[in-house]
Amino acid sequence: VVSDSSFFAEGVPSIIYALRGLTYFELTVDGPGRDVHSGLYGGLVANPANALAKMIADMHDATGRVTIPGFYDDVVRPTDEELLAWSRLPFDQAKVAADLGLDRLAGGEAHLPALERCWARPTLDCNGIVGGYTAPGAKTIIPARASAKISMRLVANQDPERIVKAFQQFVAAHTPASIRATVCPMAKGRPVLLKTDSPAIRAARRAYVEAFGRDAVLIRCGASVPVTELIQRILGLEAVMMGFGLPDGRPHSPNERLSLQQVYCGAMAAAALLNNLAADAAG
Amino acid sequence: VVSDSSFFAEGVPSIIYALRGLTYFELTVDGPGRDVHSGLYGGLVANPANALAKMIADMHDATGRVTIPGFYDDVVRPTDEELLAWSRLPFDQAKVAADLGLDRLAGGEAHLPALERCWARPTLDCNGIVGGYTAPGAKTIIPARASAKISMRLVANQDPERIVKAFQQFVAAHTPASIRATVCPMAKGRPVLLKTDSPAIRAARRAYVEAFGRDAVLIRCGASVPVTELIQRILGLEAVMMGFGLPDGRPHSPNERLSLQQVYCGAMAAAALLNNLAADAAG
Repeated sequence: VVSDSSFFAEGVPSIIYALRGLTYFELTVDGPGRDVHSGLYGGLVANPANALAKMIADMHDATGRVTIPGFYDDVVRPTDEELLAWSRLPFDQAKVAADLGLDRLAGGEAHLPALERCWARPTLDCNGIVGGYTAPGAKTIIPARASAKISMRLVANQDPERIVKAFQQFVAAHTPASIRATVCPMAKGRPVLLKTDSPAIRAARRAYVEAFGRDAVLIRCGASVPVTELIQRILGLEAVMMGFGLPDGRPHSPNERLSLQQVYCGAMAAAALLNNLAADAAG
Repeated sequence: VVSDSSFFAEGVPSIIYALRGLTYFELTVDGPGRDVHSGLYGGLVANPANALAKMIADMHDATGRVTIPGFYDDVVRPTDEELLAWSRLPFDQAKVAADLGLDRLAGGEAHLPALERCWARPTLDCNGIVGGYTAPGAKTIIPARASAKISMRLVANQDPERIVKAFQQFVAAHTPASIRATVCPMAKGRPVLLKTDSPAIRAARRAYVEAFGRDAVLIRCGASVPVTELIQRILGLEAVMMGFGLPDGRPHSPNERLSLQQVYCGAMAAAALLNNLAADAAG
């Protein structure tokens, strides 16, 4: 039982049956052995910051699709039933955008519905980038080095090991003349796609009704909880994701929060789940 | 008389008759109002770091040419005599590259000779870039903001004010949906192209012979010394650039240096210049 998950919306208990996997890289790009004068060397020396920007830009095409060869080879399409169910969920794009100070949700593959982009499509994001002179004011240098954190969210059945190799090959193929690029793989985890009719999930649905008075919706989630896949693959058990966060919980952001009401009812639901599993086992 | 310049090579006194100008910008790209979870929002939210990388990448085409519309409109081509003279200068690309730890000089417009790229062609460099998570390890966020320092070296007769406008228009045209980009113009200076037969330059050439025992070569320089252009334009005088650095002086880099021998002979040359100007004025 994994509780690192959230309700789809306030008042909408949710059981998550799919999570995205993850690969995470540090990509370091080296040029001249020291920062050099951009007047004396501009036009002579290839600039690592510009080269890194170009490499990152080349990782997507104009439609938002990731360009790494083979990246989508193992992606399992969601079923028509899933897409239909997702289209009926109370997902208010304008509200989510406004909460983030955005005029709209413009990430990912523009032609696909938002929940499909986030739940069933792999993504690539630059999580951080740094190089050269970053303090206030101006300094006219060509930096010696620039680096970026690049991560990808993966969906079933993408294999992180295969994606690591594909990314390394992509970087090697996109490294310009006189630039040296180094890829350091960091965290990785496989995507998860659970059965939606396992005994554990059936027991959890009843537990939600008992604790929150509402049936749970079965949804996917764009985040990664690698232990869920380990439970499934190594222990040979079907995990159940039964979490009690709310969409405004700001996970991984400043001021992350969880309402006390969700904690209290969540504790009731967790207890009910154990009772239900025991009752089911007793037959 | 401006001495913020260097010899072309050790033992090769040099008078610089052209300098590049400069524009310098801070380009700030904003997305969500806070750093957000890259799993929950990856595929929904446009990533400012990726957007900034794309904008920077779009500033050059595959040949190394700057793509900002109108950027090259006012560029004066060097004369055939200049290009011939530059081709005869003792410029050892392999040595310059090796000094920087590079296998070759691969910056700028690849089809042009190195000295033309550095002396007579405008360039665009990212001098620094920062955004998102940059400390050791992994953090799976989509950053709220990323920013870059972008500068351009300009050649006669590019007008920095016109380039500022062109850059602002370029950024506006390349800002993707739901991203906000802000351009803050910083330092700027006009390029300089001096007459090579002014009385001051004739007096300086004789001074170099007296102090260093060698005739000076007339060269351009890729760097910017904006006061030189102010002397020419506002005071209506022909400046003379008579400097004593050596190419291994590492200007703007750590461990910048100037040999004492160059200081001593440079002082002699500076005195000789004043004597020569006085003698010329006396007729």
